[in-house]
Amino acid sequence: MNTICAISTPHGTGGIAVARISGPEAFEIADRIWKGKRLSDATSHTAHYGCIIDPEQHDDPELDHGVATVFRAPRSFTGENIVELAIHGSPWLQRELINLLIRQGARLAEPGEFSRRAFTNGRLDLAEAEAVADMIATSSRAAHRIAMSHMRGDLSRKLSALRDDLLRLCALLELELDFSEEDVTFADRNELISLASHINHTVSAMARSFATGNALKNGINTAIVGATNAGKSTLLNRLLNDDKAIVSPIHGTTRDTIEDTAEINGRLYRFIDTAGLRHTDDPIECIGISRSIAAISKADIIIWMIDPENPDTQTPAHFTNSNTPIIAVVNKADLGLPHPAIPIKTAATITLSALADVDITPLTDALATIANIDDTTAEITITNARHYQALNAATQSTQRAIEALSANIPADLVAQDLRETIHHLSSITGTITTPDILTHIFSHFCIGK
Amino acid sequence: MNTICAISTPHGTGGIAVARISGPEAFEIADRIWKGKRLSDATSHTAHYGCIIDPEQHDDPELDHGVATVFRAPRSFTGENIVELAIHGSPWLQRELINLLIRQGARLAEPGEFSRRAFTNGRLDLAEAEAVADMIATSSRAAHRIAMSHMRGDLSRKLSALRDDLLRLCALLELELDFSEEDVTFADRNELISLASHINHTVSAMARSFATGNALKNGINTAIVGATNAGKSTLLNRLLNDDKAIVSPIHGTTRDTIEDTAEINGRLYRFIDTAGLRHTDDPIECIGISRSIAAISKADIIIWMIDPENPDTQTPAHFTNSNTPIIAVVNKADLGLPHPAIPIKTAATITLSALADVDITPLTDALATIANIDDTTAEITITNARHYQALNAATQSTQRAIEALSANIPADLVAQDLRETIHHLSSITGTITTPDILTHIFSHFCIGK
Repeated sequence: MNTICAISTPHGTGGIAVARISGPEAFEIADRIWKGKRLSDATSHTAHYGCIIDPEQHDDPELDHGVATVFRAPRSFTGENIVELAIHGSPWLQRELINLLIRQGARLAEPGEFSRRAFTNGRLDLAEAEAVADMIATSSRAAHRIAMSHMRGDLSRKLSALRDDLLRLCALLELELDFSEEDVTFADRNELISLASHINHTVSAMARSFATGNALKNGINTAIVGATNAGKSTLLNRLLNDDKAIVSPIHGTTRDTIEDTAEINGRLYRFIDTAGLRHTDDPIECIGISRSIAAISKADIIIWMIDPENPDTQTPAHFTNSNTPIIAVVNKADLGLPHPAIPIKTAATITLSALADVDITPLTDALATIANIDDTTAEITITNARHYQALNAATQSTQRAIEALSANIPADLVAQDLRETIHHLSSITGTITTPDILTHIFSHFCIGK
Repeated sequence: MNTICAISTPHGTGGIAVARISGPEAFEIADRIWKGKRLSDATSHTAHYGCIIDPEQHDDPELDHGVATVFRAPRSFTGENIVELAIHGSPWLQRELINLLIRQGARLAEPGEFSRRAFTNGRLDLAEAEAVADMIATSSRAAHRIAMSHMRGDLSRKLSALRDDLLRLCALLELELDFSEEDVTFADRNELISLASHINHTVSAMARSFATGNALKNGINTAIVGATNAGKSTLLNRLLNDDKAIVSPIHGTTRDTIEDTAEINGRLYRFIDTAGLRHTDDPIECIGISRSIAAISKADIIIWMIDPENPDTQTPAHFTNSNTPIIAVVNKADLGLPHPAIPIKTAATITLSALADVDITPLTDALATIANIDDTTAEITITNARHYQALNAATQSTQRAIEALSANIPADLVAQDLRETIHHLSSITGTITTPDILTHIFSHFCIGK
């Protein structure tokens, strides 16, 4: 096992930056570049002020003054020996320190490699390691609550309980199997079906929670649509500014649909400001409009802006057939114009002014009401597509087992479905996994974690 | 004294982020949000794994799991009690943690406030604190060497030695003063002049080193000039890419002169790609050209790109009268065109091709030769404008003292000039300072340092 190193703090300039070194030679490598307390002799969980030196630079070896913190295996994040070096946060210094550590025998860590080692060494299971990545990506209170719950093992404990139930069910079936030649049914099949149904119910509820979980984690897609000049962009700016917790523009999105996220009332919304919908022959505008239609089709909520000065309330064809909840917003309330008729069923109809200093709480309240997907129905909320796939597969195999039990199919065939369920559930926590799967999972982590 | 807190690691997302809490109540405030070892009881320089909790969130108080490191006064950066909390590096979490600490009684630190407290508590003098800021801003080996030297107190020790010399000189003069009525000259004035000249020489050499130091710290201004289409932008890209050390675009510069820095051979260059110089009536282009002329006047080195296909070697009027060293670069060597005559004295004339994969080492070598400002002539190199001003003032007052000594002016008047010199030198290390000056200095630091 190599000793690995990386900067674990965010990129850029700051007061301090932290380099992490993990592996069997962490102390030896750190000691080669450290003037101060010998770290190989240091007690675990102690911090030492000293000097980082480049032993090859004989004339001027000092790179920085800093603090080294020592964590001895197995009492560390990775379960290996770890040294954390806190230095001054210049990007140039950070680069020099990593180069220095590499010259002294460490290897630059791959993305997620510290977490992968924590998993390999049994410090975290796979679901917990993934929750660490979710924790780092967290951008709202609701998403944080789920990541925290998974990180402290709530999901893992639930899966472990399900596995125990499945093993008990298998044991009962095997009892039947052992005595099958004697043509005696030892376990009451109805009882077995009831047990399997309970498991199936739990697993499928967890799978279903992904819709909520995914929206909570990645943001509730909210398309702002309406005629040109209805005030869509003004409203977007209000929604983004009103909440102090801001907000990074999403990279890689098309330039003509502006996307941005904001946390409002503890939930993350992903607002999409679409191009005005109108008939046009302009080819560039047509592209914008077709992108708006695509945004509408993906939306969890539609905010339909209506301009009372120009009440083109003809229902946009693109969202009459959808089940997506629509909030009709009649803008420019300050003009005192008559309220246009709204020809479709809406989840809410609100009159407001998107102008600065005018309260838009009625709209954010309506959003909260619609978005108030009850994340407490499921004891556990899933936010990870890999977990969702595994839970879906587990739902199907328990369903097959129930049907087989009902059809009096032999116990060994039923047991096969149940074992498949165990396999799917175990893949979530990584009890059963392959190096390829691990590489795939951890490659999405950031470097230094 | 308040207890202050801030995120000390760079902005953004990373594996971990570190919040620093410093002040008399650091342990108490940290303990209110910490589940784990009681930090108030923890030994200095120990790290503890635990859980950050929001005591006001009764239903779900856990914010994160992390590591708390305890530093007890006076053995800490600020000289106060410090707790450093390492948490997962989500910007949302970082914000939540700071808000939580503020709710529990800490105050958000002002920029540089930790360093200011380190100064106030005698952990660093002012020059050393400023060197910490320089260290964080370091972006080349040469700038790093100077910052490191100042940070470990080389400048402060030199100033302290000068102060001792000045105090000795004052003592000798006071001896003369005490017995002045007896009309006896106790100290040989020539000896005093020699001593003062030595001090003056040292102080003025330090002041002069600022030209070098400033270029090393902020980058050697290198203007790339020449006719349109001579290949200036291509060369800029080569100079920036050739060196792996990165390179951040300078904000706030005019959009039409592109500025970027790169470390080449251990020195930072600030390359300015200017608009092509030619006569034009286009008003927008005229603005670009006048900015180019301004860039040329500020340049430490000029790279003059010449296009052999269109050898407009008429000397640009704007730099014939300057003493700035010029490197003439005849581009497009791959075309095998005859070498145009260069009508002015250049520091170097180089034929090359700015195209990719063609070696541009001759140019970077020429830059290094010209930029090889000998930073070893001065024992100490100054990089800070405040220090430069103080040293200039100190040079002038010692000069006045020397003239007064030569003119046999009474000792008490000479002593006044010497005491003024001591004042200027002491202002550098902050032995003499005012709250306003401190506020000004530390407000340029980053938050969290």
